[in-house]
Amino acid sequence: MEIREVLEQVKSGELPLEEAEIMLGGQEYEDIGCAKIDFHRNKRRGFGEVIFCRGKKLPHLVHIYETFRDRQVNVMGTRASREQYDAVRLAVPEVVYDEISGVLKYEPFPMERMGLVAVCTGGTADIPVAEEAAQTAEFHGSEVLRVFDVGVAGIHRLFSKIEEIRKANCIVAVAGMEGALGGVITGLVDKPVIAVPTSIGYGASFEGVAPLLSMLNSCAEGMAVVNIDNGFGAGYMGAQINRLIAERK
Amino acid sequence: MEIREVLEQVKSGELPLEEAEIMLGGQEYEDIGCAKIDFHRNKRRGFGEVIFCRGKKLPHLVHIYETFRDRQVNVMGTRASREQYDAVRLAVPEVVYDEISGVLKYEPFPMERMGLVAVCTGGTADIPVAEEAAQTAEFHGSEVLRVFDVGVAGIHRLFSKIEEIRKANCIVAVAGMEGALGGVITGLVDKPVIAVPTSIGYGASFEGVAPLLSMLNSCAEGMAVVNIDNGFGAGYMGAQINRLIAERK
Amino acid sequence: MEIREVLEQVKSGELPLEEAEIMLGGQEYEDIGCAKIDFHRNKRRGFGEVIFCRGKKLPHLVHIYETFRDRQVNVMGTRASREQYDAVRLAVPEVVYDEISGVLKYEPFPMERMGLVAVCTGGTADIPVAEEAAQTAEFHGSEVLRVFDVGVAGIHRLFSKIEEIRKANCIVAVAGMEGALGGVITGLVDKPVIAVPTSIGYGASFEGVAPLLSMLNSCAEGMAVVNIDNGFGAGYMGAQINRLIAERK
Amino acid sequence: MEIREVLEQVKSGELPLEEAEIMLGGQEYEDIGCAKIDFHRNKRRGFGEVIFCRGKKLPHLVHIYETFRDRQVNVMGTRASREQYDAVRLAVPEVVYDEISGVLKYEPFPMERMGLVAVCTGGTADIPVAEEAAQTAEFHGSEVLRVFDVGVAGIHRLFSKIEEIRKANCIVAVAGMEGALGGVITGLVDKPVIAVPTSIGYGASFEGVAPLLSMLNSCAEGMAVVNIDNGFGAGYMGAQINRLIAERK
Amino acid sequence: MEIREVLEQVKSGELPLEEAEIMLGGQEYEDIGCAKIDFHRNKRRGFGEVIFCRGKKLPHLVHIYETFRDRQVNVMGTRASREQYDAVRLAVPEVVYDEISGVLKYEPFPMERMGLVAVCTGGTADIPVAEEAAQTAEFHGSEVLRVFDVGVAGIHRLFSKIEEIRKANCIVAVAGMEGALGGVITGLVDKPVIAVPTSIGYGASFEGVAPLLSMLNSCAEGMAVVNIDNGFGAGYMGAQINRLIAERK
Amino acid sequence: MEIREVLEQVKSGELPLEEAEIMLGGQEYEDIGCAKIDFHRNKRRGFGEVIFCRGKKLPHLVHIYETFRDRQVNVMGTRASREQYDAVRLAVPEVVYDEISGVLKYEPFPMERMGLVAVCTGGTADIPVAEEAAQTAEFHGSEVLRVFDVGVAGIHRLFSKIEEIRKANCIVAVAGMEGALGGVITGLVDKPVIAVPTSIGYGASFEGVAPLLSMLNSCAEGMAVVNIDNGFGAGYMGAQINRLIAERK
Amino acid sequence: MEIREVLEQVKSGELPLEEAEIMLGGQEYEDIGCAKIDFHRNKRRGFGEVIFCRGKKLPHLVHIYETFRDRQVNVMGTRASREQYDAVRLAVPEVVYDEISGVLKYEPFPMERMGLVAVCTGGTADIPVAEEAAQTAEFHGSEVLRVFDVGVAGIHRLFSKIEEIRKANCIVAVAGMEGALGGVITGLVDKPVIAVPTSIGYGASFEGVAPLLSMLNSCAEGMAVVNIDNGFGAGYMGAQINRLIAERK
Amino acid sequence: MEIREVLEQVKSGELPLEEAEIMLGGQEYEDIGCAKIDFHRNKRRGFGEVIFCRGKKLPHLVHIYETFRDRQVNVMGTRASREQYDAVRLAVPEVVYDEISGVLKYEPFPMERMGLVAVCTGGTADIPVAEEAAQTAEFHGSEVLRVFDVGVAGIHRLFSKIEEIRKANCIVAVAGMEGALGGVITGLVDKPVIAVPTSIGYGASFEGVAPLLSMLNSCAEGMAVVNIDNGFGAGYMGAQINRLIAERK
Repeated sequence: MEIREVLEQVKSGELPLEEAEIMLGGQEYEDIGCAKIDFHRNKRRGFGEVIFCRGKKLPHLVHIYETFRDRQVNVMGTRASREQYDAVRLAVPEVVYDEISGVLKYEPFPMERMGLVAVCTGGTADIPVAEEAAQTAEFHGSEVLRVFDVGVAGIHRLFSKIEEIRKANCIVAVAGMEGALGGVITGLVDKPVIAVPTSIGYGASFEGVAPLLSMLNSCAEGMAVVNIDNGFGAGYMGAQINRLIAERK
Repeated sequence: MEIREVLEQVKSGELPLEEAEIMLGGQEYEDIGCAKIDFHRNKRRGFGEVIFCRGKKLPHLVHIYETFRDRQVNVMGTRASREQYDAVRLAVPEVVYDEISGVLKYEPFPMERMGLVAVCTGGTADIPVAEEAAQTAEFHGSEVLRVFDVGVAGIHRLFSKIEEIRKANCIVAVAGMEGALGGVITGLVDKPVIAVPTSIGYGASFEGVAPLLSMLNSCAEGMAVVNIDNGFGAGYMGAQINRLIAERK
Repeated sequence: MEIREVLEQVKSGELPLEEAEIMLGGQEYEDIGCAKIDFHRNKRRGFGEVIFCRGKKLPHLVHIYETFRDRQVNVMGTRASREQYDAVRLAVPEVVYDEISGVLKYEPFPMERMGLVAVCTGGTADIPVAEEAAQTAEFHGSEVLRVFDVGVAGIHRLFSKIEEIRKANCIVAVAGMEGALGGVITGLVDKPVIAVPTSIGYGASFEGVAPLLSMLNSCAEGMAVVNIDNGFGAGYMGAQINRLIAERK
Repeated sequence: MEIREVLEQVKSGELPLEEAEIMLGGQEYEDIGCAKIDFHRNKRRGFGEVIFCRGKKLPHLVHIYETFRDRQVNVMGTRASREQYDAVRLAVPEVVYDEISGVLKYEPFPMERMGLVAVCTGGTADIPVAEEAAQTAEFHGSEVLRVFDVGVAGIHRLFSKIEEIRKANCIVAVAGMEGALGGVITGLVDKPVIAVPTSIGYGASFEGVAPLLSMLNSCAEGMAVVNIDNGFGAGYMGAQINRLIAERK
Repeated sequence: MEIREVLEQVKSGELPLEEAEIMLGGQEYEDIGCAKIDFHRNKRRGFGEVIFCRGKKLPHLVHIYETFRDRQVNVMGTRASREQYDAVRLAVPEVVYDEISGVLKYEPFPMERMGLVAVCTGGTADIPVAEEAAQTAEFHGSEVLRVFDVGVAGIHRLFSKIEEIRKANCIVAVAGMEGALGGVITGLVDKPVIAVPTSIGYGASFEGVAPLLSMLNSCAEGMAVVNIDNGFGAGYMGAQINRLIAERK
Repeated sequence: MEIREVLEQVKSGELPLEEAEIMLGGQEYEDIGCAKIDFHRNKRRGFGEVIFCRGKKLPHLVHIYETFRDRQVNVMGTRASREQYDAVRLAVPEVVYDEISGVLKYEPFPMERMGLVAVCTGGTADIPVAEEAAQTAEFHGSEVLRVFDVGVAGIHRLFSKIEEIRKANCIVAVAGMEGALGGVITGLVDKPVIAVPTSIGYGASFEGVAPLLSMLNSCAEGMAVVNIDNGFGAGYMGAQINRLIAERK
Repeated sequence: MEIREVLEQVKSGELPLEEAEIMLGGQEYEDIGCAKIDFHRNKRRGFGEVIFCRGKKLPHLVHIYETFRDRQVNVMGTRASREQYDAVRLAVPEVVYDEISGVLKYEPFPMERMGLVAVCTGGTADIPVAEEAAQTAEFHGSEVLRVFDVGVAGIHRLFSKIEEIRKANCIVAVAGMEGALGGVITGLVDKPVIAVPTSIGYGASFEGVAPLLSMLNSCAEGMAVVNIDNGFGAGYMGAQINRLIAERK
Repeated sequence: MEIREVLEQVKSGELPLEEAEIMLGGQEYEDIGCAKIDFHRNKRRGFGEVIFCRGKKLPHLVHIYETFRDRQVNVMGTRASREQYDAVRLAVPEVVYDEISGVLKYEPFPMERMGLVAVCTGGTADIPVAEEAAQTAEFHGSEVLRVFDVGVAGIHRLFSKIEEIRKANCIVAVAGMEGALGGVITGLVDKPVIAVPTSIGYGASFEGVAPLLSMLNSCAEGMAVVNIDNGFGAGYMGAQINRLIAERK
């Protein structure tokens, strides 16, 4: 609806002020002092809220989780430290923490999981990033298939799993060092692939630049890339695509 | 199906050799001398074939188009020069050429278009890349909405189009220079966004590095990035996602 | 005024729809086919319109200038080639072209010039960028003092001009290679300095990266930096600051 | 005044030696052993003195603050650690410390504040840098409006504050990651914007390179950029511009 | 053997299923929970297994070494910390640890050593990387000549050893900073040289980028390069080449 | 032999002066005015001479080829243009030119070819570099197997050729863009692999940096890398390794 | 002399105004319209003037040479094209042009040459830069020894010339690609070495970055580096050092 | 002397074997187990020995100093930690340690100091690097003038010292951040300047890259650059040039 139409409907009384305000980008978040939280934003998407925990002060983080608990809204924290977890669970004992990925969830009403997202890694060292992607996809209502340690240096391992991977609606490919996993999988399946370069490696991997460039330059068709180590971003987009497909069934 | 199973079915006679060969990744391409062409590969995907024209010698390119014409298979060339077009149309007069994007199509049986992909650009200089994305999406069976010149320096232009954009199943956001378009659109819609940085700009844009980094670092949820100027890659993935959703209807 | 207030005033009839539309970021540009032009945007600022000419097709550019001529609105093109100038002046003979900077102006009602912006360069090779800055500042209603070829390798030249420079409300410092001019001037004056690195140089200047980094790292207080070779950006901001000061007199 | 004129006036006795010395760039600083301090320099600008505390040895820093206390001159330290603060306040109990930004002020005669500088951030993690900018602007005699956590991923938050921001004479825009805040604000206001990229982020943000490039490449008119995390530099220039405008009233 | 042939032989009963499975890239690794280990892969090469220890959790690492001990298979860990060594030797006391290189070996049946690999360094600081290369070559069945601290700043040292170096079948050249050692040795011998840049140095060595680029750009014939600090990779390839030559005798 | 020993044998008359001079690195090249040519150097290696033609003036190049013709020594020029070929063949009609790779050979006594080097490419665009490698290996006395266009986007093509590749003593893997070919081949064979990144690609391939980094970071064992587009270097080292192995038979 | 002292002597009449003006950095250059030329500056150094010709318009360049001819002052142009030479010699027929280096000299009173500067190159492709250095050193009154094509890939060539090189007061070492020449020479002589990286090479030489880094990281004592391809800078500094030593004899 | 001549003189008995060995680059260093030390090398130069202490194990370092003490040879360690100093002085109590620069000297027979080297810094944070340069120059027999904290942001401080600086035979200019000091000094003196970029700064200084590029790109004549933070290298070269000039007196 055009701005002009909104205004005309407001003028004529057809459209309540509150609705028009939101349509025009008005106040739809809550300022809880240490942060502004968009409780409404995710309603539109049907998802819970996500918090980037790294660097957040303990009292602030506890306050955020308490606010969600009080409102009974799902929330998932990423890159939470064990110390942060320990502080939060004193106030909100229902939180669940995954040490490998640093995901800290409060889920009073977990989303129903549907469809399938496959999360694959090149090596074992990529698992923390992959697990962040997997947990993110689950939080956002997707079933997840984990296929770890199938990098191209031992490519037969990947082949033995490829049929399972092909069943997913979307694939997240997590790899460091040479980062070839994304392109190889994309060449073998006909579903969209979200590639995640990781900062695993040393020397000329330059903290993930090598796999990032490798993935961006792949000539395999049907792959796009997120930031280095951004398991969350890939898991979110994977779940989004998966649900758009699965919900149509 | 596991390799072991394939072998057991071959041994028992259940599975014909030809099928097993393809399942195990056997010879499914054709070597036409100057290139190996995967006629079979895209059957699986239901798509035509794509050729990267830049740098290809004229006789080779003509031969490739003739081969597709003879087999009556759709083919789309990217980054074709006018000179290449002139050479090809002498041999295959049915080809259609788009000068802005350099797309050169031979489509005896165009795919039925379904769903919707929105292709947006920040400026007018990004249009060649965006048009490559749009034509790629159309070739791969998607309706396309073009929304050009809606970059963040004049962000009100984007707002006036946002409702239309929200109707698409997938958005391709093409932008050079600061590359903020991708993140802004992603924050305003709840569909997957494929961002394409372009090499438009000068100085510290470093031939597209600035928008590439900008897009990779966006904290908007639901966006992934392809290579600089890779309109084809974004259009392909956009169409792939769009059809997976649209076909479920 | 808050969105809610706008809506309330629309509802009550206090505010006309047209006004509300603009306040909420509605349609205030004109789509002339090959570009969207914001005739209204600059009314707010009191400035004419600016067009980036490089890469624009001749008929498009001619059409743009004709549109401005028909509406009698000032327009300044940057990085126009002589060929573009030749095409435009056939249609709009009143245009004025500066070959050094590539600025192509159509100014039916030139702005009154006030205040003073000083534009300085390190060497003679920086003059095209500096002249773009100077002409931009003049187009946007500022008097300009040009002080060229006063780089730090012969720093006494700068000292002989420093009293004149101090009279400006804002200084634009244009320099390539080591780019020290910006920091030296900033240390000698107490007015804001906009530094422009240029791509002049060779080898480890890396097309302007060396002066860009040099300027960003200056510990002189009161300097900020624009993109490499971005004379326009510096001239615009210089004029903006200058007029905000001068208009208060 | 030209050097020749200064010399002629000295020769004729019109000009005292002390004045001529300063005009010609003579000794106007004080060497306090561990540093040379320009007590006179800022007289010209009317501002207090600023000290970069990071890395300074405790006794040196204490000595510097004692010297300013003895002379009753305002001084602001940036990037002071709590340990440095603890050492200084034993000797100079009047100092005021802001833990978030690391600013350590001794202000016997605070400047009168006038005009308005708006300091905006994209996220909460950018606040330390923004607060350094805000406190710097206040120290240099400007009123400050703080508008934090209004980044482009939730752009409606920015819109709800834009009218207030427009009242400032100069805007400081602080953002990490994709760094789009600067360009978006610049497109919405008609005042000069000083953009500060921050090192907040991970992966391909490369410690602030991503937002730095994004800001340098913005095509919004009226923005310039300072070094990564350089809140002080932006706050200083913001105050300088603001006062030049406000003093004219 | 072509896939088609394998299938035909399976069908005809000529080829057992197990063999065909391996030929077609089937399951030939063992999943021990925390990792997938390719016991079979190295059988083909005749080598033991190698584990990258850095970052592996203690219990996982102990479990891996126990598995190899139980199967009596040689294993070499690289970049093992002393803490990892202490944990492993409690469970597998036969392990041997080299503190300089961080190599942790369990070798129930050491390979017979043959031929000669020369491992040279530019300085003493390069020795840890060189020792990793040397121990890797020994583990993989090669005699090793160590020639350390013969960099080009004191090139006469290298000349006094050059005759010995020439006896090797393959040379590993390890150097940081300017990295000239590789090119100088290659110019003096007629055997293949594997160059290893190291991250030793400071400033513009950029953690090994300077010697990496230097080595890649050498115009000496017969040298190739591995990743920065990758002593293992160079030692492996050196041993591989050496044995291919030595076994032919 | 140590320097001391050489000197003692010279003193005693055992060793002729001419021999001692060469052993100590004395004059063993010929200065033909425009270049110094090492006729003796390659005697030691048994190889002909190689000339880098790009940028050489026509008369100089003709003179060099004439000198080799007069001495009846094999010479191979790399990166020769057609114009250079046309000039040289007027003087030395026996030269043979390969337009794809730019190799220009004068071979009065071609080396006997032995063993096998496999040269593989990812795409058709990599063929010029691969052909330079192949011709270099042949010139230096190696049989060559060419396996082109078997990149990882269509990995089944590689598998159908893998058994042939395994017969080589050394493999040269040439690939641009993501550069994954090297790692994938290395994981599938047990022979040394020399990887050559190519500058083929666009955008974030950065003229070959992407495949260079990818190849350096591969965790496949038994691969080393040469400079971007350095087909000659890889072909030389491949031939060197191949002959060291083949000659032992 | 301190500023205060100058002023006191001016006041007392001891010091003429003209002298004081120059001591205080007053006007000592001439503005010839298209450039400001420091005729006086080099008097102090005893050298002629130098002009960077690249990019200068023909009439401007002619005017500059005519001005020097009229004043009978030595001038050396660098990077002059043949077209520039042709234009200048019509007006000033006495100019001498060196096509290899692009040096264009007008020397009515050539400086007496003394001492010795050695200019060495790694390859023949480095000669243009080396020749610029050599001609610059000669113009500034130094004898020059040219030792070209003695790079480390054939290091014996360098050894046969090392005694001659050691006679120089200063060495200029010019090298591209791996850039090892500087460090090797510095390790063999006890005179200062000015290293010049060149942009010769391809691929990972990155237009001279590889030799630049290599030279900066050399651990040989007594070497410093100038910009890529900056033969002039090295020749100037070499001559300056040489004359300071030679004049003392 | 040519190799041939050396050999002829050995043969004829004119030249003793020991001398010839050294002339031909034979064994002239001593291997003390943990390092090879060139006691002879510096005899030629007349200088003591220098040790890079950082990273050296305590017992090794102690052993090295004991060896020099036993031989009564001057030695200077750079970048020694206090812990290293404490360990060394227990064994060699005569050592002198400078905490600011980390220089650790054992000088039984200090060189006579002659001539003058000026060591200047831009800020106080550059002093550790400058002091390393100064102490190095003193150790190598040069008088040193220290002029600290005279950077271009307060350029009048530099002017008040410039006459003193001009008396030096060579200037070392140490600066971080924008690194303009080197170019400004070079423009004001007619002696060779060795510029040292420092890693002081933050953000876009990139650990010293900004001043490094700035210094390399200076158009001031008579300056060359050493590695980031390489005070030793600059001090050594400064002393070398200074003594070559001063010894001629």
